[in-house]
Amino acid sequence: MTDAWVLNPDRALPAGELRPPAREIYASTAGLPLVSMHGHVDVSVFADDQPFPDPAQLLVVPDHYLVRMVVSQGRVTLPEMGVRPVGGDAGEAETDPRTIWRRFCENWHLFRGTPTRYWLEHELVEVFGATVRPSAETADILYDQISAALARPDFRPRALFEKFGLEIIATTDPATADLAQHHALAAEGWGERVVPTFRPDPLLHVDRVDWRDQLESLSDVSGVDAGDYEGYLSALRQRRRAFVEAGARATDHGHLLTDTTELGTAEASRIFRGALAGEVTPAEAQAFGGHMLFQMARMSTEDGLVMQLHPGSLRDHDSGVARTFGPDKGYDIPIATEYTRSLRPLLDAFGHHPNFGFIAFTLDETTFSRELAPLAGVYPAMKLGAPWWFLDSPDGMRRYREAVTETAGFYNTSGFVDDTRAYASIPARHDLNRRIDAGYLARLVAEHRIELDEAIETAVDLAYNLPKAAYPPVKVPAVSG
Amino acid sequence: MTDAWVLNPDRALPAGELRPPAREIYASTAGLPLVSMHGHVDVSVFADDQPFPDPAQLLVVPDHYLVRMVVSQGRVTLPEMGVRPVGGDAGEAETDPRTIWRRFCENWHLFRGTPTRYWLEHELVEVFGATVRPSAETADILYDQISAALARPDFRPRALFEKFGLEIIATTDPATADLAQHHALAAEGWGERVVPTFRPDPLLHVDRVDWRDQLESLSDVSGVDAGDYEGYLSALRQRRRAFVEAGARATDHGHLLTDTTELGTAEASRIFRGALAGEVTPAEAQAFGGHMLFQMARMSTEDGLVMQLHPGSLRDHDSGVARTFGPDKGYDIPIATEYTRSLRPLLDAFGHHPNFGFIAFTLDETTFSRELAPLAGVYPAMKLGAPWWFLDSPDGMRRYREAVTETAGFYNTSGFVDDTRAYASIPARHDLNRRIDAGYLARLVAEHRIELDEAIETAVDLAYNLPKAAYPPVKVPAVSG
Amino acid sequence: MTDAWVLNPDRALPAGELRPPAREIYASTAGLPLVSMHGHVDVSVFADDQPFPDPAQLLVVPDHYLVRMVVSQGRVTLPEMGVRPVGGDAGEAETDPRTIWRRFCENWHLFRGTPTRYWLEHELVEVFGATVRPSAETADILYDQISAALARPDFRPRALFEKFGLEIIATTDPATADLAQHHALAAEGWGERVVPTFRPDPLLHVDRVDWRDQLESLSDVSGVDAGDYEGYLSALRQRRRAFVEAGARATDHGHLLTDTTELGTAEASRIFRGALAGEVTPAEAQAFGGHMLFQMARMSTEDGLVMQLHPGSLRDHDSGVARTFGPDKGYDIPIATEYTRSLRPLLDAFGHHPNFGFIAFTLDETTFSRELAPLAGVYPAMKLGAPWWFLDSPDGMRRYREAVTETAGFYNTSGFVDDTRAYASIPARHDLNRRIDAGYLARLVAEHRIELDEAIETAVDLAYNLPKAAYPPVKVPAVSG
Repeated sequence: MTDAWVLNPDRALPAGELRPPAREIYASTAGLPLVSMHGHVDVSVFADDQPFPDPAQLLVVPDHYLVRMVVSQGRVTLPEMGVRPVGGDAGEAETDPRTIWRRFCENWHLFRGTPTRYWLEHELVEVFGATVRPSAETADILYDQISAALARPDFRPRALFEKFGLEIIATTDPATADLAQHHALAAEGWGERVVPTFRPDPLLHVDRVDWRDQLESLSDVSGVDAGDYEGYLSALRQRRRAFVEAGARATDHGHLLTDTTELGTAEASRIFRGALAGEVTPAEAQAFGGHMLFQMARMSTEDGLVMQLHPGSLRDHDSGVARTFGPDKGYDIPIATEYTRSLRPLLDAFGHHPNFGFIAFTLDETTFSRELAPLAGVYPAMKLGAPWWFLDSPDGMRRYREAVTETAGFYNTSGFVDDTRAYASIPARHDLNRRIDAGYLARLVAEHRIELDEAIETAVDLAYNLPKAAYPPVKVPAVSG
Repeated sequence: MTDAWVLNPDRALPAGELRPPAREIYASTAGLPLVSMHGHVDVSVFADDQPFPDPAQLLVVPDHYLVRMVVSQGRVTLPEMGVRPVGGDAGEAETDPRTIWRRFCENWHLFRGTPTRYWLEHELVEVFGATVRPSAETADILYDQISAALARPDFRPRALFEKFGLEIIATTDPATADLAQHHALAAEGWGERVVPTFRPDPLLHVDRVDWRDQLESLSDVSGVDAGDYEGYLSALRQRRRAFVEAGARATDHGHLLTDTTELGTAEASRIFRGALAGEVTPAEAQAFGGHMLFQMARMSTEDGLVMQLHPGSLRDHDSGVARTFGPDKGYDIPIATEYTRSLRPLLDAFGHHPNFGFIAFTLDETTFSRELAPLAGVYPAMKLGAPWWFLDSPDGMRRYREAVTETAGFYNTSGFVDDTRAYASIPARHDLNRRIDAGYLARLVAEHRIELDEAIETAVDLAYNLPKAAYPPVKVPAVSG
Repeated sequence: MTDAWVLNPDRALPAGELRPPAREIYASTAGLPLVSMHGHVDVSVFADDQPFPDPAQLLVVPDHYLVRMVVSQGRVTLPEMGVRPVGGDAGEAETDPRTIWRRFCENWHLFRGTPTRYWLEHELVEVFGATVRPSAETADILYDQISAALARPDFRPRALFEKFGLEIIATTDPATADLAQHHALAAEGWGERVVPTFRPDPLLHVDRVDWRDQLESLSDVSGVDAGDYEGYLSALRQRRRAFVEAGARATDHGHLLTDTTELGTAEASRIFRGALAGEVTPAEAQAFGGHMLFQMARMSTEDGLVMQLHPGSLRDHDSGVARTFGPDKGYDIPIATEYTRSLRPLLDAFGHHPNFGFIAFTLDETTFSRELAPLAGVYPAMKLGAPWWFLDSPDGMRRYREAVTETAGFYNTSGFVDDTRAYASIPARHDLNRRIDAGYLARLVAEHRIELDEAIETAVDLAYNLPKAAYPPVKVPAVSG
């Protein structure tokens, strides 16, 4: 521990004879700007540009990847990791950030072999200049090193934006957001750098307990009465236009199922009215959700927002945890997901539409070679999204390229998205992806399946050009309603 | 581009310490004759033995692997790639082969990492002696090189048969084919080299719009009235016998589902009558399809034709493309496929029958280790077919061996089949398979799991002996009805 | 064959630059005691401590992995391999062990690339000191070498226990077992070394033809009348307590489905009564099975027995084989298995219970990254079991680590279990697992994802500490009912 902690420059590259070409390919992308077209950093981080509070609140508490691993061993609870019960007061969870940080460091060995470990090592060393590895013994030293960094002005969000080499970042915003912070950022000249993403999920799931509240918010913010089905569609169109005007390039949809069957207007209206009256069956709600995905696709052909679909996560698997601590606590678990039949209505209608961009993600790896690569490999409108969530990992990303490339090639994939709320991890995530893609490409070179110059060109496209092309700027319509 | 284009002799072999044993194993199979027991080259190619028209018509237009990739980017349409609308006249699609060829060459980068690229490189260099890689700049040079070759007599189909080192090729023929061209080939001494395969799909799917027309053709060609269920079975038996007499060794079945449940005769007759009257539900048609797979298996035990099953492809995913351009345009997409329960009736009845050979294929890789290897690893009648369609790729074939061998061994697999209508790609496809199997075997050697001499013996079996054994010649019955 | 047969010390380790770290990691675990917490060696083997009869009866006939491969080629039948029809007399199957052994040796090539081959090579050389590889020519030499060994006192079961380095072995015992042999072993001081496992499957599947007989046995052995639903639960509780008193640490459950939905007591009682009356539908039996898994989990929270679940094997796929030869003849075939929704009731109720340990296994690899790792990676009660059955193979174990570690880490897995009735194969199985884990860890080291000292510590945990921790001794309750 007397030596400074230095990350190996070859980390996450393949060993042996693949390493030299992998190094050369990685070198061609390591310094490229970061294009972060899908993420969950809150817009207020950039709008307020305030210092981050402390190491635990920045790196541990809000990162459910990290907290779930510590609690999975049964020796530490969610509150002991600083997760507060919904509506609970401070006393019901650990509030001392140093204590939380120590608990995390004591459990560092649990992260062996995980991407969380890779990202944190990168963050600690490259971003915060940490000199010691996490452990029970080093927790306090690390805490102090990070705290000292956070106090400096060059660790404020906008300064980090520059330091990270970010070119653009997309936030994710509810459809009912007023986008005031995005407008404020635009006024400060940050409008091209921080863009919103339209996320209407709570409005499309008519069996949510808060659906009617959501509808009211929609009416309020859009100025369109969403109290009947036609008004609801108009209000959604109005919000999409508002997002386009605020610089949005995409929508995002998190549904359990992938169904995209359009209902007749009469049937859709009927379910909508029933839901308003609090009378909707799970089957009706599901059908309406699929119908609305189809409507979202149609609206995308009209307004040009790229449509992103993230299906197949069963939210809040543990009902007790959800009740006590709320959503996003690490208890969202994937299910087997179907695409071929489910996306058929959507692709049949819009798969060749020149103004439609559709990016599909999955948590079910079995669909990469079986369904998603064959679909993305033929429909012009469709691109295959980066490996998502649990699959955004060294071996997960490698398996993705291995399962997808032979059928869809590289150019029907949409490039990397970091999909994170952990701002400080963004450079690490892009870096890891570039290393894994370099390793995969190096194998193709070593097996004489492509040439080195092609591999380098492809790597640059994957890291930079493809995500830019997949999420193009949207033209604001001349007349706004 | 001044240097001639030479393919690396180690292409598609693993890099590093696995390469020397892989080279040695590959060397033992590289020169073996090609046994091509499942493919889609039209019998007329051999019967007529006419020169191939031009590079685009030979290599691009009929290969939906290749066309789908070019159109997937949305910059080129099917007609621009020479694909003509059904019933359309020449003016509705590009007719200039040089223009089509250029469009393909301009998009060469899309094929990086795909098997299409490997096959084409092999074809261009090894078959046509091309000296430049495809690109916008080289398209015309390549076009002229290939055209010059195609004009030579040694590029006629039968001459290529010799040049390719083919020992035998199986075509795929409708059950209603009169097999006249096969008989003509036999009369010319080619009967042992080009054999038909019995493909009755359109007759077994009673909800197809053309089913009744098919039935009429069946009656006509068989001389047996297929107008009731018993007659239909007799007519199918007659056609199978005619195929056996024409040298056929196998049947082939492409069903969406894998169900093989036998219905009672009364129920089967009822559905048949309903279908004749144009009254059949999708569920009935599906049940009848499963029932007929069972009947096909029974007939195989009687006549000795090996039964091949290729399930799980949802045909014509885009209804607009199907309507305008017809089938086989790259829009067939796999679905999750079940084998354990679905094949139970068939295997329970015939899985130990001494005169039954059954080869199952899949587009759903998840079934390799879970269902197909366990089944093929115990039932004597069953062999596991080669990785099919999208999976007939370097990494796809490697994953197949990795998923299958540990449970089924090598000797319950049926050896490579090229399954292609692209005649000129056949040597490339067999070559790639031999390289990938060599690489897999080399790993087993390097990990001291088998000896090098065993690996070489196994490689020869996989490339040559197993496909011959899996599709043995069928004895023509002494008395033909 | 003049040279003695020596196994390569690097077998099953990765080749090339991964081999040196793999060797070093493997060296740290090669000599650790074997903790065998889940297996199928009969308790009488240890209680009686009699010599094993002959090579065929020890190594071939009872091992359905091995027999299935030989019969899969259709040239040898089950009876020819010594498998006797149920109720059949000796004449209906081969009885000469030397003939059976020869048939096996003649088919040695079928095992290339399989784990069976690895295990047998290890057994033959390391346990029996064989000097020649199996083949038609060497069968008799090998037979004599093994026979000579089996005649020696140090080849009796208890002597082998020491020689193998076993620390503890768990047998699998029916819930209705009287455990007399376990008590006898305890009296001889072997109670800590050979422990029972509670397996109640036949009692939980109310549609089995022998269910009522089983129920009678349960009443008899427990002294509790199991003739109504409440009595049935009490009797099960009694047997669990008896198992705890006999040293059991776990229960084991083999259900086709993974459903764990609790029924109301009225509904459960109703189905129970119907089953007693011989009136139960398949759907009711299935629902009752899921309900009873939930009850077993509840009882585990009460008595501390770790709950093991092994779902997804469709038993007796070939009904003719089952009828003639009985179960466990190699005809159990996996099906696609669902965990996320199915385990929700159980994990929602008990997933955070401090006295509950739950270990899930699978034959469906697709669930590793999609469902099982995400679940085990968050629920404190749940651990992910070792790759099971067909997946207990070199590449199967490697894929398991690759699919699981990035989400669940190493410490939410329960360590290796050999799950075998082939006693002599136990050291080979643990050895192979240690080599594969070493190879996986070596790659993480070579890719600078973990340090070598961490890899060594992890390897020791996987091989020894984790299985001990996952199956802790259970405290015997002070007052036994």
